[in-house]
Amino acid sequence: MAEEAEFGRLVILGLGLIGGSLAKALKARGAVAEVVGFGHREASLQKGVELGVIDSYSLDLAAAVAGADVVVIATPTLVAETMLERLAPLVGPDTVITDVASVKGNLERAAQRVFGAQPPNLVLAHPIAGSEQSGVAAAKADLFIGHRVVLTPAATTAAVAVNRIERMWALTGAEVVRMSVAEHDAMLAATSHLPHVLAFSLVDTLAGEPEQAGILRFAAGGFRDFTRIAASDPQMWHDIALANRPALLAAIDQFSDGLAELRAAIDRGDGTSIMATFERAKRARDQFGEMLRQQQSATTSRE
Amino acid sequence: MAEEAEFGRLVILGLGLIGGSLAKALKARGAVAEVVGFGHREASLQKGVELGVIDSYSLDLAAAVAGADVVVIATPTLVAETMLERLAPLVGPDTVITDVASVKGNLERAAQRVFGAQPPNLVLAHPIAGSEQSGVAAAKADLFIGHRVVLTPAATTAAVAVNRIERMWALTGAEVVRMSVAEHDAMLAATSHLPHVLAFSLVDTLAGEPEQAGILRFAAGGFRDFTRIAASDPQMWHDIALANRPALLAAIDQFSDGLAELRAAIDRGDGTSIMATFERAKRARDQFGEMLRQQQSATTSRE
Repeated sequence: MAEEAEFGRLVILGLGLIGGSLAKALKARGAVAEVVGFGHREASLQKGVELGVIDSYSLDLAAAVAGADVVVIATPTLVAETMLERLAPLVGPDTVITDVASVKGNLERAAQRVFGAQPPNLVLAHPIAGSEQSGVAAAKADLFIGHRVVLTPAATTAAVAVNRIERMWALTGAEVVRMSVAEHDAMLAATSHLPHVLAFSLVDTLAGEPEQAGILRFAAGGFRDFTRIAASDPQMWHDIALANRPALLAAIDQFSDGLAELRAAIDRGDGTSIMATFERAKRARDQFGEMLRQQQSATTSRE
Repeated sequence: MAEEAEFGRLVILGLGLIGGSLAKALKARGAVAEVVGFGHREASLQKGVELGVIDSYSLDLAAAVAGADVVVIATPTLVAETMLERLAPLVGPDTVITDVASVKGNLERAAQRVFGAQPPNLVLAHPIAGSEQSGVAAAKADLFIGHRVVLTPAATTAAVAVNRIERMWALTGAEVVRMSVAEHDAMLAATSHLPHVLAFSLVDTLAGEPEQAGILRFAAGGFRDFTRIAASDPQMWHDIALANRPALLAAIDQFSDGLAELRAAIDRGDGTSIMATFERAKRARDQFGEMLRQQQSATTSRE
């Protein structure tokens, strides 16, 4: 099997849910000869070997990436910037470097700082998939099936490198799309980073002070959906907020403008404008719900 | 059974999920002699009789409420104001009038307009329960078990009337609490009306225009929770936004202030402030989650 594998030595930097699931998916397809883990938490790496997610691991970055076919940076968002710096002297042009972070602009800027320009063998990528769980023990081979993976190649990126990472993700069952870094970061700011910021902000405002906690006893349906989002990992979202600062600020401002308009309509008792806003939202939501159902049935039929 | 019932003739104005579930719950306990429906959609009332939710109905308000022990206004929020006016000449002091609307301030003001002062036999109430379904066909006897019902009696409200409505809700398995109209409306504005307004506004801003709908194709976890809220009935939330205008505007302003602070922290790259906000929200959320679990296990053990 290993001799026929499309990918040789795959190195995962930061073995967690996403990196582990990628390794499992490629192994399940017999598409990779060897998977090596690197990180600073040895217990997690040992667990990865025990679970068969990786074949071996190293606590030494140079040893881990030596002879690598593909290196996947799967560390937290802000650590990924540092990993690019550390990889620069260790990785040759035949190794493709890629990542899985939620923001691409900060890594594009880091690459320019580190390499002068974005190197041909660096393919920034973002699998839009996650789970309420985290850690390598939660890794599963089918995590990416039916999910989108966005590649954001630069003008300087080698076509062969992009095609290789596209193929890698296609093997996991994901749908791979390409767009610019700016498009990706604006889209994620709007659809993911902004909602999280709003949810954290609302829950903090309503219940962040101990004397306000009583209000939650009466919290009805709407608030529960917000609190579910605010249960997300503060450190991860702190990293994302800083990494995607320009796009996130723009999204917050766009939202604030919309809210100010709606507030003004409520203030002047303008039922027509209120209804128009709510109905547009409901229509968009119903279309989205329909799309989700189609995606899910597509996913189910593939599984 | 009927002779022993605690409540005589119960009249439901506007037979839907809430009024229907109240009727079913009281009937299931043998606590009501007769339930009469009133509304303008005869098909819905006929359905109520077929399902055994009500015993009879009338399309004439005077006929419906004649000899009533309790009249429950279960119409949409803004219609409830009108119902108070229509009931004024028809209902004597021995009939207790109550309601189930999500906002109490507008009805308090309507009562003052109609009656001069809030009459002794009017007990404003709000069962904090709902369902994704609506209409009398979705009514169920156990809808209120473990849910809170807020009564907002005025200084002029007769104790005997308040006790009677408290008893009525206690019979459904709800936990009845009392608070002022202002407290109720501020609390609901913060925990329910504001989240809905934010969700409608976000979805409208992101996807309200047809050319923006494409963004939803990439929408990740956070956004889905918002869109679920924005699937709510626009007309109902329009009514609530207008009925609870002062408290809702205050809640929007409080939220906007908090968001502006968080935005400023992101803008200046202040990771410490960002983490502090996210961690306070997460702690509050985890406490809320724990409380919900306790409520649910209490509900389950009672069912």
